[in-house]
Amino acid sequence: MSPLRYCHHLLAQLVSSGDTVIDATVGNGQDTIKLAQLVGKTGKVYGFDIQETAIEETKKKVQLTGLTEQIKLINDGHEKMNDYITDNTKIQAIVFNLGYLPKGDKSIITLPDTTLSALEQGLNLLNVGGQILMMVYYGHDGGTEEKDAILAYLETLSQEKFSVLQYGFINQKNSPPFLIAIEKRR
Amino acid sequence: MSPLRYCHHLLAQLVSSGDTVIDATVGNGQDTIKLAQLVGKTGKVYGFDIQETAIEETKKKVQLTGLTEQIKLINDGHEKMNDYITDNTKIQAIVFNLGYLPKGDKSIITLPDTTLSALEQGLNLLNVGGQILMMVYYGHDGGTEEKDAILAYLETLSQEKFSVLQYGFINQKNSPPFLIAIEKRR
Repeated sequence: MSPLRYCHHLLAQLVSSGDTVIDATVGNGQDTIKLAQLVGKTGKVYGFDIQETAIEETKKKVQLTGLTEQIKLINDGHEKMNDYITDNTKIQAIVFNLGYLPKGDKSIITLPDTTLSALEQGLNLLNVGGQILMMVYYGHDGGTEEKDAILAYLETLSQEKFSVLQYGFINQKNSPPFLIAIEKRR
Repeated sequence: MSPLRYCHHLLAQLVSSGDTVIDATVGNGQDTIKLAQLVGKTGKVYGFDIQETAIEETKKKVQLTGLTEQIKLINDGHEKMNDYITDNTKIQAIVFNLGYLPKGDKSIITLPDTTLSALEQGLNLLNVGGQILMMVYYGHDGGTEEKDAILAYLETLSQEKFSVLQYGFINQKNSPPFLIAIEKRR
């Protein structure tokens, strides 16, 4: 199955009713809505996006789905996560889609420094058994640099504390996206 | 889940009663027996191993499990696959464990040339929808060369005909094994 499908498969196993989760890159809002369905009305989804249009468009979609109660959209960069979510809020899952907003301004992309900062904050916020699921799109300008910086960082994570899984096809052209799944082990 | 557990998970989804499958590296016979249970009495498992002790020990285990009917053990290298299995036998799954026989002679290892030859023959024998599942152990002397040769070959496979998935942990010490799953798409 494709990395994206496997990502959704893992999410459905990982997240249940009442959980608190983060969509670190709201984009077109698809994952935000999927997460809101998984956590239900007793759960919470924090959605970050630095692009106002992404937040505004997603707000409209959220209202149409009737999932407003459990979704909090935040028009700020994901590297500001700690300004909005306190350390004692334990997070079951955090989703990242690295790259640019589909159908949006392709010059606005996620960047190594802010992605790494958000990743570190996210690892700290996770429950034991919780996971960060990151779809890495890197075919655009600057994509390879971001991918390499993230992989170099992840390879240094303690294997006692985290397991870092890479899942992807290796015989495809045009830099196909791959999935990184980081589980907090203790 | 670990690459080995994911390999078994994929096998259980892939193989059903009546299928014909190959264990390309019988070793201690664990996968041979697992495969025999999946294909049942109406199916067939061809098991290859170049080491006579591996075949003899596995024969004893097979007799104890009562799965003799569907298992054919062959004391020959997997690169001789085509000498034993005709082109019109369609194969649903082929399992490889690359490296050396656990608890066996660590100087007897799978080697790039014969592994690549077996891999090519295996891809040709597969059903559409069938898969080669390969656990790559590469921590031993010569392991890195074999791994690199195999990855270089697999990256050249046509993405229209095959999808080649790599699944593994990237933050572990001591060269942990990873899984390669190659599906024949058409």
